[in-house]
Amino acid sequence: MTVVPHAVTEGREMVEAAMRAAVERLDPRMRRVAAYHFGWVEADGSAPAGPTGGKALRPAMALLSGRAAGVDPARVVPAAVAVEFVHAFSLLHDDVMDDDRMRRHRPAAWTVFGVPAAILAGDALLALAEEVLLDRGTAGAHRAARCIASTTRKLIAGQALDLGFESRSDVSLDECTVMSMDKTAALFACSCAIGAVLAEAPNKLALALSGFGEDLGLAFQLVDDLLGIWGRPEVTGKPVLNDLRSRKKSLPVTAALGAGTPASARLAGLYAQTEPLSEDQLVEAAALIEEAGGRAWAERAADVRVDSAAARLDAAGVPADVRAEFLAIAHFVTTRDY
Amino acid sequence: MTVVPHAVTEGREMVEAAMRAAVERLDPRMRRVAAYHFGWVEADGSAPAGPTGGKALRPAMALLSGRAAGVDPARVVPAAVAVEFVHAFSLLHDDVMDDDRMRRHRPAAWTVFGVPAAILAGDALLALAEEVLLDRGTAGAHRAARCIASTTRKLIAGQALDLGFESRSDVSLDECTVMSMDKTAALFACSCAIGAVLAEAPNKLALALSGFGEDLGLAFQLVDDLLGIWGRPEVTGKPVLNDLRSRKKSLPVTAALGAGTPASARLAGLYAQTEPLSEDQLVEAAALIEEAGGRAWAERAADVRVDSAAARLDAAGVPADVRAEFLAIAHFVTTRDY
Repeated sequence: MTVVPHAVTEGREMVEAAMRAAVERLDPRMRRVAAYHFGWVEADGSAPAGPTGGKALRPAMALLSGRAAGVDPARVVPAAVAVEFVHAFSLLHDDVMDDDRMRRHRPAAWTVFGVPAAILAGDALLALAEEVLLDRGTAGAHRAARCIASTTRKLIAGQALDLGFESRSDVSLDECTVMSMDKTAALFACSCAIGAVLAEAPNKLALALSGFGEDLGLAFQLVDDLLGIWGRPEVTGKPVLNDLRSRKKSLPVTAALGAGTPASARLAGLYAQTEPLSEDQLVEAAALIEEAGGRAWAERAADVRVDSAAARLDAAGVPADVRAEFLAIAHFVTTRDY
Repeated sequence: MTVVPHAVTEGREMVEAAMRAAVERLDPRMRRVAAYHFGWVEADGSAPAGPTGGKALRPAMALLSGRAAGVDPARVVPAAVAVEFVHAFSLLHDDVMDDDRMRRHRPAAWTVFGVPAAILAGDALLALAEEVLLDRGTAGAHRAARCIASTTRKLIAGQALDLGFESRSDVSLDECTVMSMDKTAALFACSCAIGAVLAEAPNKLALALSGFGEDLGLAFQLVDDLLGIWGRPEVTGKPVLNDLRSRKKSLPVTAALGAGTPASARLAGLYAQTEPLSEDQLVEAAALIEEAGGRAWAERAADVRVDSAAARLDAAGVPADVRAEFLAIAHFVTTRDY
């Protein structure tokens, strides 16, 4: 397994304590679903036997973003909590919409608590994300809350576009990039800037950090799409070849379909098939994506984005130690196997 | 049909224009679902032939609440938009969770656009409610946005409790009242105070208006529950005896079940039946609720709440013309037939 960067583990306890305190505000039914989703408890309420929960990259970036603005991470904890809550909201709802049954090596919340409870718990976490920020009466909190609201709007637009792709065979790589920008990169951008926004740093710094996050977010999505095809299920926690099974128009798939090679045409044929793809066909589809250049394109595109992200940090004049930690996260994002 | 109060129609165009402008920010897919839900278009995008949309009580109350604080309704339009968006969010999601197929005389959005689109459109409107308020950088906007977030949390707690009732036969009238307070009265309370909050009126006024809204909201829910059993489907826009069909533990039902009469016991027997209730049994259940005193209790409880609401307005020293309009809405709420 790839080593998790220091910045990701450093503020984790502080953020988790604040998340737990905020979740206490919820109705007991919603609290249970949220605690399960965050990996704090098992479905029956017992303590988890092994490590659970997500990578928590977004809260780590939010704390770093505060440090970039020269403030102590402890001062921007609500920003870290808010981005993680928005992420959780989107996962809870997306798993229902996409009919995804596994999340982080465990059954998705909706399969355990039912669809209504998963929808409501997502709703509750979205509202709570705003509430924890607005608890503070500062101008920074106001702007951070606004950032959460507009980012959520983008995230939803991305998911709507993605759902629309399912019934289309003519998705261009540009459209697919726009979708990934909205669905994934927007929340990365917000996460990388929100600590600085909450700390009332100059707009210029917040914009540069947002640009860094956007590039990094697209790199993250490219790697996620690669792992959705070539990831090892025992490491990713998701079923093997899951994205191909549901015929997702992910970035490497779209690149392969649009490459104009014989492999592209054969892949298009498989994607157009009305019956479910057999296990053999799934393996064939993965091979065709590679043959058509989709895999190499996505790997290269992720590297280009990470380079661009780094350049934005340099231009922003972020302190060297913070810069190093941001770049460690960027390295983790592109080399991770889960 | 009951006559709609002047305050409800007065600011309607202004609020609708602002709602339409805000919905323009959404992804085209979400925009379509929202426009359909609000009754601006039919499912195919064409103009509606007849009147559509909801009663728009909440935005009317939000504008009145601004007037109570001495400011022009035009200045608190974002507050009116926000409460109507939160209401729409909750309806879009509740219809999915409750498997309700009709809304305002038309097929519910999820039956037209699918469950994922309805979930996402609800999400989008919740985020947009916050965004329209936070567009304004004032302390009043900050507090109004916080009010929206905490109200949404309560609304979700109420819906979670309500869903939990479905699998229980021992729901007390107290629990049912708490549920209705959260699910309905909280957003009424917020709607009646948010204009004053946005206008930065003294806290005392906002609290009194919130109290008025809470009482009125509970009265609204009591009447809604009565209409859910004895309402005329051609007027309410919902299928006849719908709440009994899904064996909702609404307030009059809970009161009847807890009344300890022979009719209560027979009603409990029907509610405990595993097979769907036949049309004859639905009619019988309605008669039993009446016989056990559930109908009379709910009618009386609604009147008591409206009297209490009026007393709160008096104590708050709300201007006479605004008071009259608030009371006209209260009268409408208890005498309406839809």
